[in-house]
Amino acid sequence: MPLSGVKALTFDVFGTVVDWRSSIIHEATAMELRVDAAEFADAWRAGYQPAMARVRSGELGWTNIDTLHRMILDELLRKYRIDELSEARKTHLNRVWHRLAPWPDSARGLAMLRKEFICATLSNGNISLLVDLARHGGLTWDCVLSAELYRAYKPDAAVYLGAAATLGIKPEEAMMVAAHKNDLLAARKVGLKTAFVERPLERGSGGPADKGREDWMDIYAKDFVDLANQLGAGA
Amino acid sequence: MPLSGVKALTFDVFGTVVDWRSSIIHEATAMELRVDAAEFADAWRAGYQPAMARVRSGELGWTNIDTLHRMILDELLRKYRIDELSEARKTHLNRVWHRLAPWPDSARGLAMLRKEFICATLSNGNISLLVDLARHGGLTWDCVLSAELYRAYKPDAAVYLGAAATLGIKPEEAMMVAAHKNDLLAARKVGLKTAFVERPLERGSGGPADKGREDWMDIYAKDFVDLANQLGAGA
Repeated sequence: MPLSGVKALTFDVFGTVVDWRSSIIHEATAMELRVDAAEFADAWRAGYQPAMARVRSGELGWTNIDTLHRMILDELLRKYRIDELSEARKTHLNRVWHRLAPWPDSARGLAMLRKEFICATLSNGNISLLVDLARHGGLTWDCVLSAELYRAYKPDAAVYLGAAATLGIKPEEAMMVAAHKNDLLAARKVGLKTAFVERPLERGSGGPADKGREDWMDIYAKDFVDLANQLGAGA
Repeated sequence: MPLSGVKALTFDVFGTVVDWRSSIIHEATAMELRVDAAEFADAWRAGYQPAMARVRSGELGWTNIDTLHRMILDELLRKYRIDELSEARKTHLNRVWHRLAPWPDSARGLAMLRKEFICATLSNGNISLLVDLARHGGLTWDCVLSAELYRAYKPDAAVYLGAAATLGIKPEEAMMVAAHKNDLLAARKVGLKTAFVERPLERGSGGPADKGREDWMDIYAKDFVDLANQLGAGA
């Protein structure tokens, strides 16, 4: 099926739509945490996959990302011997994930894409987090979909197939948009189209972000505006 | 808790946000169905509660509104001896529920309300239907929530409590907005605040729409703009 059959775009959010790393560095610095803010941001994010793996393996029952972020944060505060934070400040800090800034092109590109396609999140973040992020960043979605709805975390096939079913379309009528190749490969495996948006700064300047076009990608884009232009949307 | 604690508004959709009756009359007329279009619209809607009751009772497994609408439509076509429609036209007609026009104040009032509150649908309609309605009517939601997510139909308490949980708030931090008193009473029973928006024309001029203020309502409003003004939103 050509790309003309695509009806909806489903977007990864952390790293693809929003710049989690700069936002966390900014807030950790503003809070005057006695820690290297970039190292702290990277360590927090590094705890994410192992935490989801504990849910996937069944070691933890279903646990949403807010709670997983807090578990990782508590470990980090111990590791870095940061013990001066009140519970209120810890709660506030944990909710930094609800206040991440979008990449500069996200809102504009999304508005262009929405003229042509249903645009939905498809993130491992919980819905309340995604709603807050959208309001914070001035992003408009047609629908906020989350792994939470399917009680499975990406790259579990149930998430991609569940999103297509929720949107009332076939898997091949959906296109997954992400800055992470593993997310796209998992979506592709169950029939979704794929658009890779390169976010070279996601892991910091010179960091190990996914880069480069691959043969299997339906689209390779530099940012959301480029994606919209390639799809003929919002012109 | 005073209304100042309200963080999110959850909206009934059919009749509250959109004018299902006029829209169906319009399309039935345009399709030149050999039937009184108003009677046809009312009969279709009248099948809605009994159809959901069959799901609630367990007679039918989980069945979404698109499918229930089609079951009712097929009965009506038999009843009115309309046998000239192709499958494609039946499918198109059934999707009239994805193309209902909003009331004249809906988009403007909603935009005002979103400046202050998280605004989500909370409809028995399935998510893909609600997404289409929003795009069709130029409505913007922070989040599209549906009975579908909780596998229960309003007025089941699970729907209202589920929505609050999904939004990460307490039931009393949510306000249900509806033109139907039974919907509001069920929401109120499990702790949500209530805003009644009177839609006197929902069932046609002189029809049996719910009307009038009741003591238990937190807010009684004439339309969404009035609701926004009473809540101090978007001024």
